[in-house]
Amino acid sequence: MKHFPHFLTRSRSARSGTTPSGQVDFVGAGPGDPELLTLKALKALETADVVIHDRLVSPEILERARRGALILDAGKEGFGLAMAQAEINALIVQHASRGAHVVRLKSGDATVFGRLDEEIDAVTTASLDYRVVPGITSASAAVATIGQSLTKRTRNASVRFLTGHDMKGFAEHDWAALARTGEVAAIYMGKRSARFIQGRLLMHGANPATPVTIIENASRPDQRVIATTLARLEPDLTDAGLTGPALTLYGLAPRLAEAVDLPLPLKELAQ
Amino acid sequence: MKHFPHFLTRSRSARSGTTPSGQVDFVGAGPGDPELLTLKALKALETADVVIHDRLVSPEILERARRGALILDAGKEGFGLAMAQAEINALIVQHASRGAHVVRLKSGDATVFGRLDEEIDAVTTASLDYRVVPGITSASAAVATIGQSLTKRTRNASVRFLTGHDMKGFAEHDWAALARTGEVAAIYMGKRSARFIQGRLLMHGANPATPVTIIENASRPDQRVIATTLARLEPDLTDAGLTGPALTLYGLAPRLAEAVDLPLPLKELAQ
Repeated sequence: MKHFPHFLTRSRSARSGTTPSGQVDFVGAGPGDPELLTLKALKALETADVVIHDRLVSPEILERARRGALILDAGKEGFGLAMAQAEINALIVQHASRGAHVVRLKSGDATVFGRLDEEIDAVTTASLDYRVVPGITSASAAVATIGQSLTKRTRNASVRFLTGHDMKGFAEHDWAALARTGEVAAIYMGKRSARFIQGRLLMHGANPATPVTIIENASRPDQRVIATTLARLEPDLTDAGLTGPALTLYGLAPRLAEAVDLPLPLKELAQ
Repeated sequence: MKHFPHFLTRSRSARSGTTPSGQVDFVGAGPGDPELLTLKALKALETADVVIHDRLVSPEILERARRGALILDAGKEGFGLAMAQAEINALIVQHASRGAHVVRLKSGDATVFGRLDEEIDAVTTASLDYRVVPGITSASAAVATIGQSLTKRTRNASVRFLTGHDMKGFAEHDWAALARTGEVAAIYMGKRSARFIQGRLLMHGANPATPVTIIENASRPDQRVIATTLARLEPDLTDAGLTGPALTLYGLAPRLAEAVDLPLPLKELAQ
């Protein structure tokens, strides 16, 4: 057993006395609404020298950064390609090594499908200090919007966050387990893989009437909530013509739909 | 398919013209550090008439409430018993029905093991308006502390949040799936059930050297990080003598331990 009573503090003080160098804060920006920034994230932005942000971070959040801070868009697509991970790593290290307070701003929570590890590896290899400031992940904001919980006594004692696709293409998951009654999952990046996920779940015996809710642009002014079922997931997603980031809540319907006497999953929500 | 373009707004405006009544905000207070409150949560506290909080919400967070607000402890144990859920529901409805802005403050994120649904049911039955303000859940704060991610490319394309016990006692889960290499889970309320979880996972073939990290009082000044393995989980937890809330990260070791050349899960962390 190893105790780390003052984990980050110790990591930092161990380097005191060395050449002064910068600090890297990996900060979760939340799902889009600037009001969903944590106080800690806001303070980091207000004291940053350099902010390196993802494509999905909203302009309203970037406006909260210190006026003099250099704002760099790591999600910018030049010639059709976003900046490569190695380039982003190099950018972070380059600025922090010359003493800057770098805020690496990621949408949602940096520890959930945020490719955080590669960047921390680069920062620790360069012997730079860092900390991770957690953020509100999309699943939290999405489920709050529809007035439901990710877990509920007597329904589900666990919830899964999963990605629609991984490095090899559409991501494989434990479909048989997810197909059971009462399961709840938050599916990230599930737009393009909707047909694949739908097919896998139905093949493994999931009830076609299982409620599925897609929240586009969660917490933003242009948020849209699309309530459907597993059976109609793919056509309804296509009809909706989503353009923004979307989070799919498998196994949950909006509470309003329940309240207005649409007893899910018994009744088809589509109209 | 049902669209809810302005979901909460519609819910609210539908009631305009009726008798003026209060508002209930279900607010996630985060894991303990007041700096991990969202700006939205802080605003709710600063405008609250009544704050009804759980036992685990820290005094530093309650201090952020409006000076004139009535602060009620729903986790207070009189005669050895915490307030019953029905009493809490009644308390919320009672104050909101007489026009108060009630903030129901829950530690972490109200939608994750927060017993939110029962309270929303009570509020909607009383025809009161409500909204849910998401918070930083313990798993996010805990994993940030040890410099790891809940998900990682090539390691795990999903993460589970699960509870150590449910209404029937120790909670059963899909142990065989969790026992596979590379799985990551955040176990809430897993202190008392540690031996049970350990036994189930080993029985289903989990590697005894799988890293397990327990974070007590995540994000608070008295935070402790205990790095161990599945094999030593139960004895190490007992030795540590935890008194505060603890979050168990199954499948993850602190990054510092990796950095100081303790190649997990090949080497026993216990010393």
